Amino acid sequence: MIRIVILGTGNVATHLLKAFVASPKTEVIQLYNRNQKGLDETDFKGHKTTATEELLEADCYLIAIPDDAIAELSSLLPFKNRLVLHTSGSVAITDMDSKNRRGVFYPLQTFSKNRNLDFSEIPICVETENAQDLTLVKKLGNAISNQQFEINSDKRKQLHLAAVFVCNFVNHLYQVGFEITSKNELPFSILIPLIQETAQKIKEASPAEMQTGPAKRNDQKTMEKHLLLLNEEPLQKQLYKLISEAIQQTYGRKEL
Amino acid sequence: MIRIVILGTGNVATHLLKAFVASPKTEVIQLYNRNQKGLDETDFKGHKTTATEELLEADCYLIAIPDDAIAELSSLLPFKNRLVLHTSGSVAITDMDSKNRRGVFYPLQTFSKNRNLDFSEIPICVETENAQDLTLVKKLGNAISNQQFEINSDKRKQLHLAAVFVCNFVNHLYQVGFEITSKNELPFSILIPLIQETAQKIKEASPAEMQTGPAKRNDQKTMEKHLLLLNEEPLQKQLYKLISEAIQQTYGRKEL
Repeated sequence: MIRIVILGTGNVATHLLKAFVASPKTEVIQLYNRNQKGLDETDFKGHKTTATEELLEADCYLIAIPDDAIAELSSLLPFKNRLVLHTSGSVAITDMDSKNRRGVFYPLQTFSKNRNLDFSEIPICVETENAQDLTLVKKLGNAISNQQFEINSDKRKQLHLAAVFVCNFVNHLYQVGFEITSKNELPFSILIPLIQETAQKIKEASPAEMQTGPAKRNDQKTMEKHLLLLNEEPLQKQLYKLISEAIQQTYGRKEL
Repeated sequence: MIRIVILGTGNVATHLLKAFVASPKTEVIQLYNRNQKGLDETDFKGHKTTATEELLEADCYLIAIPDDAIAELSSLLPFKNRLVLHTSGSVAITDMDSKNRRGVFYPLQTFSKNRNLDFSEIPICVETENAQDLTLVKKLGNAISNQQFEINSDKRKQLHLAAVFVCNFVNHLYQVGFEITSKNELPFSILIPLIQETAQKIKEASPAEMQTGPAKRNDQKTMEKHLLLLNEEPLQKQLYKLISEAIQQTYGRKEL
């Protein structure tokens, strides 16, 4: 049984807490948060604290708080030489205070508070400063997921960047679709099967093989019509132009 | 039993052919294509022809060919006053020759040749010039799908535009993710659960409610780090900047 203290009560912390509480291989012995409000909002029944001095002794400490607060909290920990992991995609392992044994436990997923997630399918990207800590961190990953990857800080940053494109930016394009349908009194739900199929297709072949649409086939007429429709939405128009340009650079402009 | 002639052998035509052949409510009595090659490649067992003069009498003619060829083929049809439908998102109903009764049968989906699709979930956007033809076109839709929408040419164009954003452009962002992971010797498959969850989330709440990431929370530090990582990829860098800008305009720049 791995004994864990979780630090943080945001989306990532809440989902990890739930997964570790549910696992028979781990025990969450304490939940820390800077303020009481976050603690009051969780339904965690175990020991909670807002004071770093009260942190219990555990096999590992999991810091799941905003990126820019990780370094500071790691230096406020009132102990040394224990295993401290952060859960961020873009913070380097060396950004944490070196007084403890450092590691990373980055679940590559988008977390929203009211969504139930099946952790078993979520890739966990792990990294440790000391090789001997890797065993425990991998056990920790195994406790909740079937997919683990050992990835160093440099590659993890790149992965996080890729995640921004395929998740955050993709979601914004869904939002553009939402705005266009709303504006024209069409239900957004009409786009849902298309969105699902687009996401499903790339399980079977690379995105390049699955690319379709006016830009891919250099259908100038359709692109011009679309740009006209976007005349009142300069930012959407810019997006349309730039992404079409990117598609055409990727595949070469096919002459008709 | 609705008797159909399908004109075209591309992705949309092939998928529609398969669906109508499988439906007990419709019969595909003939397949037309401009050239023999397309006909040879299908496994359709019925009558095939490359000559418009040989087109059989049917309840409706379904033109599923490239957008810019629809008007011409509609004028080459050697008969009058029959029901002719095209399947395009961006071609107006009036772009077809008025000698026949015109209509639109637009399945809102992305079609790739080797994918099996469940048509029952695909929204079919229908439109007819004459009100009395709507009954048959709706029956045609019902034969293969549970989701039908009566949508005029102006709204259909907007819908097609929205589809380009949520499908073609989204797929290009998947491709950017593919390129970043490949370049860094990471498996693209590690991004798949994130891609699926991003697409699933918007079934439950609007994309705006589901937006996360550095741009949404105005995390300047992370955005600067990401832009540095993209220094060698000017087009990806432009995409990163513009989509981040669009997200920030949508939600307002939150001050830290």
